[in-house]
Amino acid sequence: MSNNTKNPNWIGVDWGTSNLRVALMYDDGTTQCLTSDQGMSGLNPDAFEPALLAMINDHLGAGVTPVVICGMAGSRQGWAEAPYIATPCNPPSIAEAVKVKVNDPRISVSILPGVKQAKPADVMRGEETQIAGFLAQKPDFDGVLCLPGTHSKWVHISAKEIVSFRTFMTGEMFALLAEQSVLRFSVQAELDLDAFDTAVGDALSRPETIGAELFALRAGTLLATLSESAARGRLSGLLIGTELAGARPYWLGRDIALIGAGKLTALYQRALAQQGITAPAVSGEDMVLSGLSAAYTQQVKT
Amino acid sequence: MSNNTKNPNWIGVDWGTSNLRVALMYDDGTTQCLTSDQGMSGLNPDAFEPALLAMINDHLGAGVTPVVICGMAGSRQGWAEAPYIATPCNPPSIAEAVKVKVNDPRISVSILPGVKQAKPADVMRGEETQIAGFLAQKPDFDGVLCLPGTHSKWVHISAKEIVSFRTFMTGEMFALLAEQSVLRFSVQAELDLDAFDTAVGDALSRPETIGAELFALRAGTLLATLSESAARGRLSGLLIGTELAGARPYWLGRDIALIGAGKLTALYQRALAQQGITAPAVSGEDMVLSGLSAAYTQQVKT
Repeated sequence: MSNNTKNPNWIGVDWGTSNLRVALMYDDGTTQCLTSDQGMSGLNPDAFEPALLAMINDHLGAGVTPVVICGMAGSRQGWAEAPYIATPCNPPSIAEAVKVKVNDPRISVSILPGVKQAKPADVMRGEETQIAGFLAQKPDFDGVLCLPGTHSKWVHISAKEIVSFRTFMTGEMFALLAEQSVLRFSVQAELDLDAFDTAVGDALSRPETIGAELFALRAGTLLATLSESAARGRLSGLLIGTELAGARPYWLGRDIALIGAGKLTALYQRALAQQGITAPAVSGEDMVLSGLSAAYTQQVKT
Repeated sequence: MSNNTKNPNWIGVDWGTSNLRVALMYDDGTTQCLTSDQGMSGLNPDAFEPALLAMINDHLGAGVTPVVICGMAGSRQGWAEAPYIATPCNPPSIAEAVKVKVNDPRISVSILPGVKQAKPADVMRGEETQIAGFLAQKPDFDGVLCLPGTHSKWVHISAKEIVSFRTFMTGEMFALLAEQSVLRFSVQAELDLDAFDTAVGDALSRPETIGAELFALRAGTLLATLSESAARGRLSGLLIGTELAGARPYWLGRDIALIGAGKLTALYQRALAQQGITAPAVSGEDMVLSGLSAAYTQQVKT
């Protein structure tokens, strides 16, 4: 029998479309993180429990270990559907989680729901837990959270509630354009930050020209008047600048904080700074853990 | 020996990135068209002559048959580079074509150059021949030609010259979003024209929200408030509407004509009609033939 101090008290899981991130949470406050590429998109419903067990099996002790999951595992195509909560709402708590029937008696699995908005139509799964984590640390925050990524979210928070939000396809468009479009021949270099800055300003002042400014990256490198690193900087700046133009009703005159990966939040900070806005940034992975912990603590209390 | 009346006088070729279109031009004014998927992108420089001969070999008569080519075969990665002519300029004539050294003595091959613009950086290859074809039929046209496609072009024409032009990545973005992005799960249906019309208006009035409006197509179909055919209509309308917003300096207050494939030019006509603009449309394939014929005629005269 394993020594109790060596087994996690509970396990937090961020199960996204492409990745599975597991956090083993120990008694002494330490955390051990494991990641795999067993994301939701590659798994049938039956395959989720084995995929999870393959990662945590050696860490389970005697008794039942609670597992709290957020992200795409709760979508209709996931492990078990955790129906969306509608805005305006508090970030979903463990009381709204779906209990999943499992075969292994050593785990007890709950999946946190995502959040939906009727108009404009919008959805999130996973980000609501980062938001819960942020609010667990800053319960008095009143303003806007920006979560840059494949599908960037701008979220208006007031009185601990998600009031409204808007998702932009910025990250996915960057990946498609940089890797699949004709621009792939023009942007294979390190991103130039000066070119990024200029492009942010260009897109903020004339967002409607995005389709032409994108093709100009190809033309500029063909005509040798633009380097590939300037083209990559402009590609990123044009897309983020267009997002900022569209998200202006969110960031104008409000407190802003960024949640996400450091490299990406740094670009958003740079772009916002041009508009005179100082936006502190916190790590998305830290906020997920904080949010999962908040949910687990609710569970223990209830 | 073959009967002269059965062999083409000359051969016009539109050699694009993905396709090769050959027109056999006969004495009596008739034309026979052949197409293949031997586009520029799949061919090394050495492979162009064999790819062309495979299509025309059986049609060649005694003597030398002139072959006039436009399109990506003249790019640096093509058969032989036909350097760009800079705007403002007349559409390139046969005098500016590059003579290609060939192995088969039965053909004499010329490649027409494309057109470049320094600022904003832009390039075209193939469209300049469609423009030449249009101007051969309407030499007094003064206004703007719109050539919708993978890379849509807006071209200001005055006094038979290409004064300036701007390329928008609209068609390529539609293909990437509809086939490769998360939206591929939401737009697999016939395009709904009412939804198209509404989206054109939305994008024209708020082009900066494009990134959010795109994600809303996914969210709307997930939440079952938007049908897939409405989502496809909106996807097309948002992209074309954003292009129209960016191209406004081109179409506002000028005569417009469309050159392209019938289905696509019909959508642009619909979108422009919302702005009170009637734009006649002609076939892109017809204009290429007309432009190649104009170049061949120049050659015969010179």
